[in-house]
Amino acid sequence: MIRKYTIGNPIPTGSVVTPVKAEEGLLPGWAFDSEGKTLSYSMREDDLVYGLGETVRGMNKRGWIYTSNNADDPFHLEDKRSLYASQNFIMLIPGKLSGRQIGGEGGEAGRDGLSGGLFGLYVDTPGVIHFDIGFTDLDTLTIRFEDFDADIYLITEDTPRKIVKELRALTGRSYIPPKWAFGFGQSRWGYKSADDIREVVDSYRREDIPFDSVYLDIDYMERFKDFTVNKENFPAFEDFVTEMKEEGVHLVPIIDAGVKIEEGYSVYEEGVRNKYFVTKEDGSELVGAVWPGRVHFPDFLNSKARKWFGRCYSFLLDKGIDGFWNDMNEPAIFYTEDRLNSVLEQVDQFKGRDLGVMEFWQFRGLVTSLENNRDDYKTFYHDYDGTRVRHDKVHNIYGFQMTRAAGEAFEELCPDKRILMFSRSSYIGMHRYGGVWTGDNKSWWSHIKLNIQQMPGLNMCGFLYSGADTGGFGADTTEDLLMRWTAVSIFTPLFRNHSALGTRSQEFYRFPKVKQFRDLVRLRYALLPYIYSEFMKAALGDDMYALPLAFVYGDDERARRVEDQLLIGESIMIAPVYEQNALGRYVYLPEEMKLIRFRTDSDYDEEILPAGDHYIPLKLNEVAVFLRKGHCLPLADLSAAAGPVKGMEDAFSCPLKFITFEADPEDYVRYDDDGITRI
Amino acid sequence: MIRKYTIGNPIPTGSVVTPVKAEEGLLPGWAFDSEGKTLSYSMREDDLVYGLGETVRGMNKRGWIYTSNNADDPFHLEDKRSLYASQNFIMLIPGKLSGRQIGGEGGEAGRDGLSGGLFGLYVDTPGVIHFDIGFTDLDTLTIRFEDFDADIYLITEDTPRKIVKELRALTGRSYIPPKWAFGFGQSRWGYKSADDIREVVDSYRREDIPFDSVYLDIDYMERFKDFTVNKENFPAFEDFVTEMKEEGVHLVPIIDAGVKIEEGYSVYEEGVRNKYFVTKEDGSELVGAVWPGRVHFPDFLNSKARKWFGRCYSFLLDKGIDGFWNDMNEPAIFYTEDRLNSVLEQVDQFKGRDLGVMEFWQFRGLVTSLENNRDDYKTFYHDYDGTRVRHDKVHNIYGFQMTRAAGEAFEELCPDKRILMFSRSSYIGMHRYGGVWTGDNKSWWSHIKLNIQQMPGLNMCGFLYSGADTGGFGADTTEDLLMRWTAVSIFTPLFRNHSALGTRSQEFYRFPKVKQFRDLVRLRYALLPYIYSEFMKAALGDDMYALPLAFVYGDDERARRVEDQLLIGESIMIAPVYEQNALGRYVYLPEEMKLIRFRTDSDYDEEILPAGDHYIPLKLNEVAVFLRKGHCLPLADLSAAAGPVKGMEDAFSCPLKFITFEADPEDYVRYDDDGITRI
Repeated sequence: MIRKYTIGNPIPTGSVVTPVKAEEGLLPGWAFDSEGKTLSYSMREDDLVYGLGETVRGMNKRGWIYTSNNADDPFHLEDKRSLYASQNFIMLIPGKLSGRQIGGEGGEAGRDGLSGGLFGLYVDTPGVIHFDIGFTDLDTLTIRFEDFDADIYLITEDTPRKIVKELRALTGRSYIPPKWAFGFGQSRWGYKSADDIREVVDSYRREDIPFDSVYLDIDYMERFKDFTVNKENFPAFEDFVTEMKEEGVHLVPIIDAGVKIEEGYSVYEEGVRNKYFVTKEDGSELVGAVWPGRVHFPDFLNSKARKWFGRCYSFLLDKGIDGFWNDMNEPAIFYTEDRLNSVLEQVDQFKGRDLGVMEFWQFRGLVTSLENNRDDYKTFYHDYDGTRVRHDKVHNIYGFQMTRAAGEAFEELCPDKRILMFSRSSYIGMHRYGGVWTGDNKSWWSHIKLNIQQMPGLNMCGFLYSGADTGGFGADTTEDLLMRWTAVSIFTPLFRNHSALGTRSQEFYRFPKVKQFRDLVRLRYALLPYIYSEFMKAALGDDMYALPLAFVYGDDERARRVEDQLLIGESIMIAPVYEQNALGRYVYLPEEMKLIRFRTDSDYDEEILPAGDHYIPLKLNEVAVFLRKGHCLPLADLSAAAGPVKGMEDAFSCPLKFITFEADPEDYVRYDDDGITRI
Repeated sequence: MIRKYTIGNPIPTGSVVTPVKAEEGLLPGWAFDSEGKTLSYSMREDDLVYGLGETVRGMNKRGWIYTSNNADDPFHLEDKRSLYASQNFIMLIPGKLSGRQIGGEGGEAGRDGLSGGLFGLYVDTPGVIHFDIGFTDLDTLTIRFEDFDADIYLITEDTPRKIVKELRALTGRSYIPPKWAFGFGQSRWGYKSADDIREVVDSYRREDIPFDSVYLDIDYMERFKDFTVNKENFPAFEDFVTEMKEEGVHLVPIIDAGVKIEEGYSVYEEGVRNKYFVTKEDGSELVGAVWPGRVHFPDFLNSKARKWFGRCYSFLLDKGIDGFWNDMNEPAIFYTEDRLNSVLEQVDQFKGRDLGVMEFWQFRGLVTSLENNRDDYKTFYHDYDGTRVRHDKVHNIYGFQMTRAAGEAFEELCPDKRILMFSRSSYIGMHRYGGVWTGDNKSWWSHIKLNIQQMPGLNMCGFLYSGADTGGFGADTTEDLLMRWTAVSIFTPLFRNHSALGTRSQEFYRFPKVKQFRDLVRLRYALLPYIYSEFMKAALGDDMYALPLAFVYGDDERARRVEDQLLIGESIMIAPVYEQNALGRYVYLPEEMKLIRFRTDSDYDEEILPAGDHYIPLKLNEVAVFLRKGHCLPLADLSAAAGPVKGMEDAFSCPLKFITFEADPEDYVRYDDDGITRI
C-alpha cells in the first residue's frame, strides 16, 4: 500500500509516473517539527535501515548522516555525506523487538500503524535533505529538510521486495540496456586516438579475452565539445565505428553536461539562440568552466531544451554509435567566471603582507573553494517550463533531466533499438532512462567492498543497470586488487574496467597473470545467460537483481547483518574476497547451499555445505558461487563454441549447461531478449 | 646474527647504538643495480613481509609501495605511500614454498644463504627510499634509493622474535614511560583554558570514569609559542598543575617543532643568537610558517642546538609538568616565506585573462602546493655537528632528533623520574627516547582496523609505547564507533581519546551510553597490572607487546594470514569488532583458547573454544579476550577497591584476581615498576 503525504509546496521532480492522491494529516508514526523542518522516527535497536542508493558505508545505513546534495567528489570516504546521486528512498526492516519478523506469516499488529514496522519511505523533493540515521542519536532517524517541501510516499507491505515493487510501480519500470552492454567493456581516460583504441582491441583479441565495447572518454571530442569528434585523432570516425562494429566492438562515447562557449560551434550557438542555457539573475547565461574551459549549462529542466539536447545525440547515433555515458552532470563546475574574477581580485590584498596563519588559510581557502562551490548553485536559474527556479532548489534532478533528455530522444529517434545509457549523477526516476556507474572511485580494496554494498541500494531505487569502475578509477591499481575486483564485477550488470589519466594502466592484458584475467572474463561470458535472464526478470518484474541477504532471510538474525555477500538473481549468492593477501574468507550460509568454486568456466568443483559459518579458501583466481537449494545455474558452455568466444553473441550462441542443486533445469525460467524462453 | 653491508657513503642517523663491522661484498640473496639504485629480492608466493612501522594497509605489507619520506598528511588512505614516520625495517617470513617453516625445529638449509628464508632487514639511511613490496610485480621486493647510500643490516635468526631482539640490541632498548601514562587520557584540540580543563576533569569525576591525564593541545601556549603559557587563559599555571596533580591528573602539553619569530621571545632570541636554527643557502634562517605564523626551525641535528632545546622543556618541568607530546616535527610547513612571495607574484599573471582549464589548474596548483612542499626541504641546511647538510638528505631523522633532544634533557634534568614523551614523526632510534601516537587519523571504522594493524609494525621497530587517537582525530565520531574503538585502545599502551577542533565532541561523558564507556575504561584499569607487566617484559626483554599471529603460529597457514587479531603479551589474544552495525565477528583460533567475554571488569563469562574458526557474538559493550592455554590473566579486582577507582594508583592498589586456563597464577611472572615481582 502506498500513501502520500505532502509537506509544503514541493517542486515537481518528474520522478513519479503513477499519481497518488495525498492523504490528510501527518505521516503516521513520525514526529513532525515544522520549525526545525524535521521528521523523526524512533528506531528499535535491532531495526535495519536500507536504501539511499549510491552512498558510502554499509548496506545497513544506520550510524551516519547522509545528505542528498549531488556532488562531484572523487573521495568516496566513510565520512562523506554526499556523492553524485540523490536516491531518497529508505526501507526500515524491523527486528524481533518490534514484535514481528519479515517474511513470516501474519505476525502481530504493527507498531505505529506501520504494518508491523516494515516500511519504505520515498521522499520526493529536488532540494537538499539530510537523513540522520542514528548519527546524532543511535536510535533516532531524522530527516531534515533545507526547504520543508516534499511529497512523501509511505509504502507498507509484508516483505521488502513487495515494497520495492510498489516503489517501481510508482516511479516506473527500470531501464533495460542492449544485450551487448552485459558484455565486458574496456575504458580509460587517456585513449586519444583511433589507433589507441585499435591497440586496445588488438591486445584483447591477441590475448583471447572476450569483450564487447570500448569506451571513449573526453579525448575523442574536439576541444571537449559535446557532439563533436576530433578529426585529427579520429579521422573518418563513421568508418572507424563501422570497422569496430565489424570487429564486434561497440564504441561508447562520453557526453558532458557543459557546452563549450565557442563561436561557430553549432550546439553552443543553437543553445544561445533559443535560450536553452541556464541564466544568472540578470538573465545572461551563466559562465562556468569544466573540461572545455568556459561553458554554458543546458537547462535540462526546460522541456524544449531537453528535447533539443536529446536530439543532439543523433550526431553520434547517425555515425553508428549505440551507447553513451553522461558525465559531469551534478553539474560539476571547476569555477564560475564571476567567482574566479572575484577571487583574483581578493588575492591581491594578500600581497606584500606578513600573512598570519589564519590569513594564509583564508587565502588558500579562497582558491580551493572555487571548485564545485555550493554557493554557485544559488547564482543561476532554470526556466522550469514557464517558472523561473533557482538552481539550488532543484539541484538534485539536474543529472536526471539530462539523462531523460537522452532517453526520450532515443525512444523517438530509434524506437526499435535499445541504446546503452548510463549516468554519473542521478535521482529516482532517472532509472527509467538509464543506469549509473558509481562514479570516480579509487583503486582501493575498501572500494571493492563499497561496490558490493552499493549494489542493493541502487537496485531497490530502480537502478538495476549499474556497476563500478573495476580496478578503480583514481589511484594506482595492483594486479591482485584488479583480479579480486574483477571477480565481483563479473556479476554486476555493468562490467567495465576504467581508470584515470596518470594512474597505472590497468587493461587486463598488461599483467603477468593475463591468463587468469582471461579465465575470469570468460566466466562472465559463461554466466551471461543467467545474468541477462535474472536482470530481465528484475527489470520486467519490478524486482531487484542484487539483493542483501536481509531481503530474503529477514528472520535470520545473522543473515540480517551480513554486509559483504549478495544474492544475485534467484539462484545464487556471492561472497567476494576484498582483502589484500587473503587466501579466503568467511561466509555465512543462511541455508544449505552448494559451493561452486570456479577456476575457469569449465574447471570448477562443487560441494554441498550446511547452513552456518564457513571459512572458504579462495585463491586469487578462484570465484565462489553459492547455489541455493532447489535452484540451478545455467551457464553458456563456452567449450562447445564453434570458434573463439570474442563477445556476447558468441557466448549466447553456445549451448547451455546447468549446475543444479536438487532442481530440474527444465524448471529454470529463462528470459532471453525481451520475452521469456522456456528451455 | 647481524651482518652489515654499506652502500656508498651514508650520512649517520644516530639510530644504531651497537656498532657492527661492515661485511665485504654485496647483500646476499639480493640483486644489486647501482644504476637504478635498487636492491631486489624474489619473493615466493607464500612469503609474508612484515614491518615498516606506522604505515597504511595490512600487517603483511605485500602488494603496495611504501616511501620513507616523513609527511604531515592527515589522510591515512590506502594509496598513501608515506605517513609521519620512517621505520625502515622489514621482515620476510617464508612459507612452505621456501622449504622451511617458522618456529619449526631445524628445517632445511635456507635459500639464498638467508637462514631458511627468514630474515630481517634494517635499511639505515636518513634520506628518501621506496619499498616496492610486490606493487610493480606481485613477487618482487625492490628497495629503491634516491641516494644510493645506506647501512643495511641483515638479521638472520630462526624465529621472528629473535630477529626483533637482535634489531633492538642494535638500536637500543625501548623507551619506558611513567606508570601513570598507562592510564586513560583525555585530549582535544580546542580546550582553551584552565576552566575548560576543569570541566573535563569534573565531568569525568562526576561520571566515575577513571583517568590519569588531560592533554593540552596548542591553545595552552601564548600565541602558539613553545615553552610559554597563555597567562590569560591559564593564570597561575603552576598552581593549576598542582591543583590537577592533587586531583590525580597529569597535564600533558604539546610542543611543536617551529619556534615563533617574535622580538623579546627568549627561545627565539637565544636560537638566533646561537645560530641554532636551520639556514638557507645564504646562511640566513629559513622562515616557514606553522601555527604561530612565521617561525624558524631548530637545527635538531646540531648537538648544541639539541641540548639547548632539550633544556627548554625545564620551563614546564619546573612547573610540575611530567609529560609532553612532540608535534609538527616532520617538519610540517604550511608555507615558506620565499615560496609564498613567489606564489603571490605568480598569481598576478592570471588576472584579467580567460583562464583555460589547464591554466586554472596551474593557478590552483600554485596555491595548494604551498603546504608541505617537498621542494622546500631542498632549500635549507643543517649544521650536522660541523658538516653542512641539505635538509632533504636527512629529512627522515628530524623528528627523531627533536625527541632525542627532549629525551636526553630529561635524563639530565630528572634522572630519577620517567617523563612521558611521545612524538608524531619518528625514525628507528627514536624509540629509545619516546613513543609515538599514530598521528591525525579520522573517525573512520577503517581506522580502527588500521590501528590494530599498525601496532605490531610499530612494536617490531621498537615503538612499544604507542596508540591511536581513540574515536578518531578528524571527522565526526559516532557513539558506536567510539565504543568499538575504545574496546581496542584499552589494550594499547597509549590510551587517549583525542579529536580535532570543529569535529563532534567525543569525551565519553557526552554520550547516552556513558555507563558502557565507564565499564570499558574500568576494564582498562582492571587490565593495568597485566598491560603494565607485559609492556615491561617487552621493553626490558627487547621483545614485542603486540604481536601478529604469524610471529607465534608461523607454521599455521591460516594464522599467518590473520590481519585483524593481535596477541597482547604472553597470555591473551584480542579480536576487536571494527565494523559498524556488526553484532559479532569471525575469529580464528590457532589453538584451543578460553574466550572471556567481558561486559564489565567483574561481569564476564568464560568459555573454552576449540582451535579453528568461530563466529563470536559481541554486543556493542562486550569485549572478547582469548586466553591462551597454560596461561593466566591477572586483573586488578576493582570491586575490592577501598574507594572509587579514580586512576592508575587506585587500580594498582587493588588486590589481584586471576582468570586462568590450565595454569597456576603462581607461575605468572609479574613485572611491577622496574623490577620483577614474583606473586
